[in-house]
Amino acid sequence: MTPELLEQALHVAPFHQWLGVSLRESGPDGITIAMPWREEMISNPALPAMHGGVLAALIDLTGFYTVLAAGHVCTSTADIHVDYHRPASRESLTARGIIVRIGKRLSVAEVRVSGETGKLLASGRGAYAMKG
Amino acid sequence: MTPELLEQALHVAPFHQWLGVSLRESGPDGITIAMPWREEMISNPALPAMHGGVLAALIDLTGFYTVLAAGHVCTSTADIHVDYHRPASRESLTARGIIVRIGKRLSVAEVRVSGETGKLLASGRGAYAMKG
Amino acid sequence: MTPELLEQALHVAPFHQWLGVSLRESGPDGITIAMPWREEMISNPALPAMHGGVLAALIDLTGFYTVLAAGHVCTSTADIHVDYHRPASRESLTARGIIVRIGKRLSVAEVRVSGETGKLLASGRGAYAMKG
Amino acid sequence: MTPELLEQALHVAPFHQWLGVSLRESGPDGITIAMPWREEMISNPALPAMHGGVLAALIDLTGFYTVLAAGHVCTSTADIHVDYHRPASRESLTARGIIVRIGKRLSVAEVRVSGETGKLLASGRGAYAMKG
Repeated sequence: MTPELLEQALHVAPFHQWLGVSLRESGPDGITIAMPWREEMISNPALPAMHGGVLAALIDLTGFYTVLAAGHVCTSTADIHVDYHRPASRESLTARGIIVRIGKRLSVAEVRVSGETGKLLASGRGAYAMKG
Repeated sequence: MTPELLEQALHVAPFHQWLGVSLRESGPDGITIAMPWREEMISNPALPAMHGGVLAALIDLTGFYTVLAAGHVCTSTADIHVDYHRPASRESLTARGIIVRIGKRLSVAEVRVSGETGKLLASGRGAYAMKG
Repeated sequence: MTPELLEQALHVAPFHQWLGVSLRESGPDGITIAMPWREEMISNPALPAMHGGVLAALIDLTGFYTVLAAGHVCTSTADIHVDYHRPASRESLTARGIIVRIGKRLSVAEVRVSGETGKLLASGRGAYAMKG
Repeated sequence: MTPELLEQALHVAPFHQWLGVSLRESGPDGITIAMPWREEMISNPALPAMHGGVLAALIDLTGFYTVLAAGHVCTSTADIHVDYHRPASRESLTARGIIVRIGKRLSVAEVRVSGETGKLLASGRGAYAMKG
């Protein structure tokens, strides 16, 4: 898939539009997705910190598009694992996904999410069910 | 924490307001959270299916409030694991969280998410960092 | 599969023989596997505590046989997640596996491992690739 | 910790001696652990394939020593996640661990296990409880 087609596919999902994600870079080894801050993403208003579920969504979708960008067709997420390292607070995020393994039935991608200063905020991996 | 205080705490988070979650039942062994459908939650409009990230958010927050409802104070999510079983499609969801283990530093809760017909759609577990 | 056939299948694996596991109970909803202590399983000799890898093996195999006992054929483990709650120390263990979801391509089982006093020592889940 | 001290610490565990693991390389960014094949590690004798629990043990311990090699003291494994990619069959294995995040309470390391031909057989991550 070309970056243009990936970007189009990314925007088809209403939830991706809500998240405001966009494809910043893509290649066979990995992709980078950008996500702006929005106030509705807050979990704890006292910090304020982004909800872990929003970070999980970013990791899930970045892994999924990492598999697509490598030229393989996955159809759904089988499972995800997310580790939370530091709170994300009023900053735009960058998610970098890389391929761990392209399999016949399942493929695995790893994702690291950083904030504006480059600090790692969350990381994880997704297993994606392949077409066929 | 009383159900009333839990319900209040749940609504403090802007992302929980966006998700529309509410506490349906709570006790020392577990809680039930309800979440209505909204069109912005869609990932694949062709089915339409709810985005896996929204399901991950529901599992994360239900596990967190399961620990609180059991009378223990957790402060953040350390990690989550989510398995996706079936697509959620234009239906309100119910998440049932139960305690696996209350620890001094980490507590673990398990969550199962069902749709309107009672079918299991997703399940998982979260590990939560404890106060102190 | 009958409990006798399950027990036979369990013993085919040389590593299961090394672990000393045996089927204590089996049914469509779940199974119970027993595992005796052996000194070579120790990780930290000062406590002594059982190695987390041995507990992971017990969780992996119990989940796998939980799927078989429910009458479904899985062929390999796709992934596992294990949470460690308390050290296991010079005691025989009991692992209880239950079905979370039988799927066409992946099935998920949950497992809880207890020590001799009944305390929960570790818990987790496995996703198993189905035949066909 | 020097490589010599790490190697000594690694061999203190009776289960590590049984696995036959040794430290091949260590540095602040990562370590490499070697593990020879042994017949008792077999799960399915028909292939023969190594038991997933043995691979999980290798991933768990490699992550743990990756944190130690980076100069930080972890005391126990909080949780692990393991993805299985291909069967390991009568071959010695190499596990490469890298730091994802050193935290005050939890640190996370990623591990990839390869066989003799260099193919990725399993991968995963561990979260380790820090001293203090």
